[in-house]
Amino acid sequence: MNNMGKVKRHIQRADKSAVERLAKYGVATVHEAMGRVGMLHTYMRPVYPGARVSGTALTVLLHPGDNWMLHVACELVQPGDIVVAAISAPCTDGYFGDLIATSFKARGAHGFVIDAGVRDVSELTAMGFPVWSKCISAKGTVKSTLGYVNFPVVCAGALVNPGDAIVADDDGVVVVRLDEAEAVLAAANSRLAAEEAKRAKLATGVLGLDLYDMRPALAAKGLTYV
Amino acid sequence: MNNMGKVKRHIQRADKSAVERLAKYGVATVHEAMGRVGMLHTYMRPVYPGARVSGTALTVLLHPGDNWMLHVACELVQPGDIVVAAISAPCTDGYFGDLIATSFKARGAHGFVIDAGVRDVSELTAMGFPVWSKCISAKGTVKSTLGYVNFPVVCAGALVNPGDAIVADDDGVVVVRLDEAEAVLAAANSRLAAEEAKRAKLATGVLGLDLYDMRPALAAKGLTYV
Amino acid sequence: MNNMGKVKRHIQRADKSAVERLAKYGVATVHEAMGRVGMLHTYMRPVYPGARVSGTALTVLLHPGDNWMLHVACELVQPGDIVVAAISAPCTDGYFGDLIATSFKARGAHGFVIDAGVRDVSELTAMGFPVWSKCISAKGTVKSTLGYVNFPVVCAGALVNPGDAIVADDDGVVVVRLDEAEAVLAAANSRLAAEEAKRAKLATGVLGLDLYDMRPALAAKGLTYV
Amino acid sequence: MNNMGKVKRHIQRADKSAVERLAKYGVATVHEAMGRVGMLHTYMRPVYPGARVSGTALTVLLHPGDNWMLHVACELVQPGDIVVAAISAPCTDGYFGDLIATSFKARGAHGFVIDAGVRDVSELTAMGFPVWSKCISAKGTVKSTLGYVNFPVVCAGALVNPGDAIVADDDGVVVVRLDEAEAVLAAANSRLAAEEAKRAKLATGVLGLDLYDMRPALAAKGLTYV
Amino acid sequence: MNNMGKVKRHIQRADKSAVERLAKYGVATVHEAMGRVGMLHTYMRPVYPGARVSGTALTVLLHPGDNWMLHVACELVQPGDIVVAAISAPCTDGYFGDLIATSFKARGAHGFVIDAGVRDVSELTAMGFPVWSKCISAKGTVKSTLGYVNFPVVCAGALVNPGDAIVADDDGVVVVRLDEAEAVLAAANSRLAAEEAKRAKLATGVLGLDLYDMRPALAAKGLTYV
Amino acid sequence: MNNMGKVKRHIQRADKSAVERLAKYGVATVHEAMGRVGMLHTYMRPVYPGARVSGTALTVLLHPGDNWMLHVACELVQPGDIVVAAISAPCTDGYFGDLIATSFKARGAHGFVIDAGVRDVSELTAMGFPVWSKCISAKGTVKSTLGYVNFPVVCAGALVNPGDAIVADDDGVVVVRLDEAEAVLAAANSRLAAEEAKRAKLATGVLGLDLYDMRPALAAKGLTYV
Repeated sequence: MNNMGKVKRHIQRADKSAVERLAKYGVATVHEAMGRVGMLHTYMRPVYPGARVSGTALTVLLHPGDNWMLHVACELVQPGDIVVAAISAPCTDGYFGDLIATSFKARGAHGFVIDAGVRDVSELTAMGFPVWSKCISAKGTVKSTLGYVNFPVVCAGALVNPGDAIVADDDGVVVVRLDEAEAVLAAANSRLAAEEAKRAKLATGVLGLDLYDMRPALAAKGLTYV
Repeated sequence: MNNMGKVKRHIQRADKSAVERLAKYGVATVHEAMGRVGMLHTYMRPVYPGARVSGTALTVLLHPGDNWMLHVACELVQPGDIVVAAISAPCTDGYFGDLIATSFKARGAHGFVIDAGVRDVSELTAMGFPVWSKCISAKGTVKSTLGYVNFPVVCAGALVNPGDAIVADDDGVVVVRLDEAEAVLAAANSRLAAEEAKRAKLATGVLGLDLYDMRPALAAKGLTYV
Repeated sequence: MNNMGKVKRHIQRADKSAVERLAKYGVATVHEAMGRVGMLHTYMRPVYPGARVSGTALTVLLHPGDNWMLHVACELVQPGDIVVAAISAPCTDGYFGDLIATSFKARGAHGFVIDAGVRDVSELTAMGFPVWSKCISAKGTVKSTLGYVNFPVVCAGALVNPGDAIVADDDGVVVVRLDEAEAVLAAANSRLAAEEAKRAKLATGVLGLDLYDMRPALAAKGLTYV
Repeated sequence: MNNMGKVKRHIQRADKSAVERLAKYGVATVHEAMGRVGMLHTYMRPVYPGARVSGTALTVLLHPGDNWMLHVACELVQPGDIVVAAISAPCTDGYFGDLIATSFKARGAHGFVIDAGVRDVSELTAMGFPVWSKCISAKGTVKSTLGYVNFPVVCAGALVNPGDAIVADDDGVVVVRLDEAEAVLAAANSRLAAEEAKRAKLATGVLGLDLYDMRPALAAKGLTYV
Repeated sequence: MNNMGKVKRHIQRADKSAVERLAKYGVATVHEAMGRVGMLHTYMRPVYPGARVSGTALTVLLHPGDNWMLHVACELVQPGDIVVAAISAPCTDGYFGDLIATSFKARGAHGFVIDAGVRDVSELTAMGFPVWSKCISAKGTVKSTLGYVNFPVVCAGALVNPGDAIVADDDGVVVVRLDEAEAVLAAANSRLAAEEAKRAKLATGVLGLDLYDMRPALAAKGLTYV
Repeated sequence: MNNMGKVKRHIQRADKSAVERLAKYGVATVHEAMGRVGMLHTYMRPVYPGARVSGTALTVLLHPGDNWMLHVACELVQPGDIVVAAISAPCTDGYFGDLIATSFKARGAHGFVIDAGVRDVSELTAMGFPVWSKCISAKGTVKSTLGYVNFPVVCAGALVNPGDAIVADDDGVVVVRLDEAEAVLAAANSRLAAEEAKRAKLATGVLGLDLYDMRPALAAKGLTYV
């Protein structure tokens, strides 16, 4: 029961084509398309603005102040993966910098998500390797304690299974269950089409009150104008 | 006593011309001109840097996870308003995105201030619709519970009355009482003029110690050099 | 024992040439070169991105809501100093803006670090005067209570002695003891050289597992692949 | 506009008898009876458990690290008052201890509420003088800067006017507008009576689903059992 | 995909006898016995000190400011359950008080765990119904939006499946997978026995350095005495 | 420069008799007697209420999630010491429980102070071994990385040198420089005597305004009564 180091080499990944197409919809639309679930906590922010990526989750469980398992994870990265790192207890250390980013990028990773700190902000920005993290920290870590690769983790309040789809942009990070990627894609597509029509109308001054026919429901609840 | 939904259609607004002129002084100068009051909490940050706006407050009280009243508020927006949204208890959900922003903008709103989260950061930036919020969150909200429009609210620690003047920039958000806009404008103007003269002197190496004649007061308090 | 206002006019400073050369290595490398010590808390963020500076610490101890001693400190600034301000209890007020920045800059300061708030973000950005702070706040401060200049302070969790070397960039702020600047420089240089070689290898797809020869140690700890 | 020190000697207070009777209902019931408004932030906790008090608000606005105006306020305390202290910016200093408590108690104050720190926890507990605060802090304050007594303040996120009724217990602190005390009392009384009947039924195993007839509404919303 | 309200009536529960026996070992021992996993965040604190309970998880997913599903959950409570409530986004409202507690208790619940606020602290203490929560809040909630009962939830950073075993005491809350309760019990028992022997030795002044034979490993790592 | 493990066996300690007598004055008085310095952050709270202790600091620097050096420190504990543990980066893990407490107590330690978490709250309370910590956490730690014993540390924002005097009670934790213990004792004694006379007067209704002769200063500052 105490064996604190396991790696699953082979995992099922969400359908590659579906995952790739999810990126275009962005985090907010994908989250809504799933029925408003799947968001990581709001403290997960991009290291630099403007990136929008999707990928399949390669999950890692690390311990406070120890980034050893990121190196173990790197060997298993496949093109199109996003490495998602959880920590077994809250930590702000800088687990990740431009060296590991170089390695992840060389193996085709689309990005990195960690519920802790990262460093080398300028270098990551210059490389264009997108990262979402809890904070920026130059504090280095040790390589002493084993963890897990490719087991389910809770990252920033969200359950992430290996192979799940991840979408991340300036609005944050959202996870899509691996067998729901196609269905979410369809729902996101419908939503996006509907939103475009709505946006056009709202831009002309039509009110949401009328567009969504909210007046009767508001009146029924007892809204009063004084 | 329990009627949780009221809207005041007609409110008095701070003098439009005075409010417009306040923008040029910026938040810090306006705050100082009022005797160091009126700041919202420091966690209220702009969604994108560089905006500096002023407007008259259209106030909304929302509940955790429910953005319904923003649609009610939209109908009452007049050109030059800034919608100021308070929540009845702390919440980080994403109450506001590019669709409502389109609607607010179509009606002439100068910006949006909310003690909660917003989403569609990239789209808001592209639109150039300025927003100050507690956080960025893609988490969607429901439309179930009534609130208040155009009643006094406490937003991020500051009392905001409907019609008060709001000034917001990269330094945060400040509120000016509706009947004080002219007086604040005058005080801000004096302050700005004085600051320009001081800045020129300080740039040449004159010390604040001498410019503000602080040495006697410091000595009187007992400052010692060792 | 109760005399709450003392200023040390003359302090020893870390070797100027060594301090200047530290900037090129950046915060993360300098921190690692010292054996992973010296970081200020991760909430210390640059007011604008992209600056990388080094300098000798001129230390100030201020009280909540009172920035008087910054003016006292200014007189003692020598070219190449970075003013490091600690507060005697947590405070988010805006102690520093473009006027004091103008004064510090006129005297040759390389930057400003404060465990509290600053304001005039747009102006500081335009001036190119680099500042690291706990938050942005327009809230003004008074000039009433004496503090200390050029005594050891704890700033954002780190002990800073007057004359210590400070390095700051997008990764945060690190302090180097005044008599260790040369040794840290040497260690940072070795580290940087080693990193460049590693980066090149990692970019070709070589794994950290192999580059750092981690496989035996992982196996010895009991890592299992399933 | 810059005069930072004003005291209103004479204020209207909520009806004394009504305020006294509010204590028996407790914070949660009073808050519900008002339609779920009036709560101060949840970080406001009692210094010792078990106190339940009500009183009329004597309001004070203090500055960070400065408790001078508490002495000014003390002179105006009337029996049955609760002193409510707001700070012009967030502060954790210890503004209040057993000496001022002795003074407040001697003048008949029912308690003290402050959006900052207090000290002398053991002594306050031994005296039985109830205090609700943001934190416990021994950090002393100065007496340098004027503030306001008996003007409206925002304390821990809630607007408190002088003379409003305050109720505080282990669940926190709630404010009742001075002209609503009687109406709230009536509503709280009805609520309490209803709750007692409900509690008896629930204790026998009757479900809230049935007692409140929730099943049809849940079904109408689409709740499904699987 | 958007159906936001589902209840699973029948779940498998961890072995009742094993779960009951877990209580005696307490949270820290159970957490260690599992290999240092399963802790909820440290902000989960007991409403009153001294309780130590175990039970089987009946899981609920609620939305910000809405406690409706607690009533739905209550019907499914079986003797020995602990209701574990997660919120779909951070919220501090008071979802739970003495009325629902009466109902839960009447149905045999052993306790309640919620990643949000609760109220009626005095009444819960008097009833002796143990509760662990993120905060104390009298802020009431609405009954408008459906959620989930008996589906996996992430509560305070930990994945909890329906039927898992929960242990809670003054050290916090830990979750044990439903099929591991027996094995954890065995490991906890071994650990407890070993700890008793160690405690006796340490009490006589034997050092952990010697008892755990740490000196060689410390020396091998390079520990130096100066 | 990189040697991350050093222990100083022999340190100078503050005068034992002076340190012992400091306990009677309590944290707030000692802090004031020193001119309002020396407080650890307000998040440092006692594990159980009512303890008031003093002792000489035995300092330890630990790393996130690693408590190994507490065992190293234990060997050096002398009767009357208080072990003060800092962490090299923020961490909430449970570094300390009843086993190490038993060992510290056996060697005569007066208490334990840590800028992280502790566990076994019930057992520590039953033992009567006083502990001040940042949080309560059952999360276990590893024994992998060396740190420092008896070197200066920054603990919860305060510099603590080995041998300094520590005073801790329900108001928090304060540090007194080792060569100032006698002087602080004298100042605390004067202060306490003065406070007793003041308390008696204030209890009779004399105002602080008059007792401290504040009226002229308030008037000079411009305080106005309306």
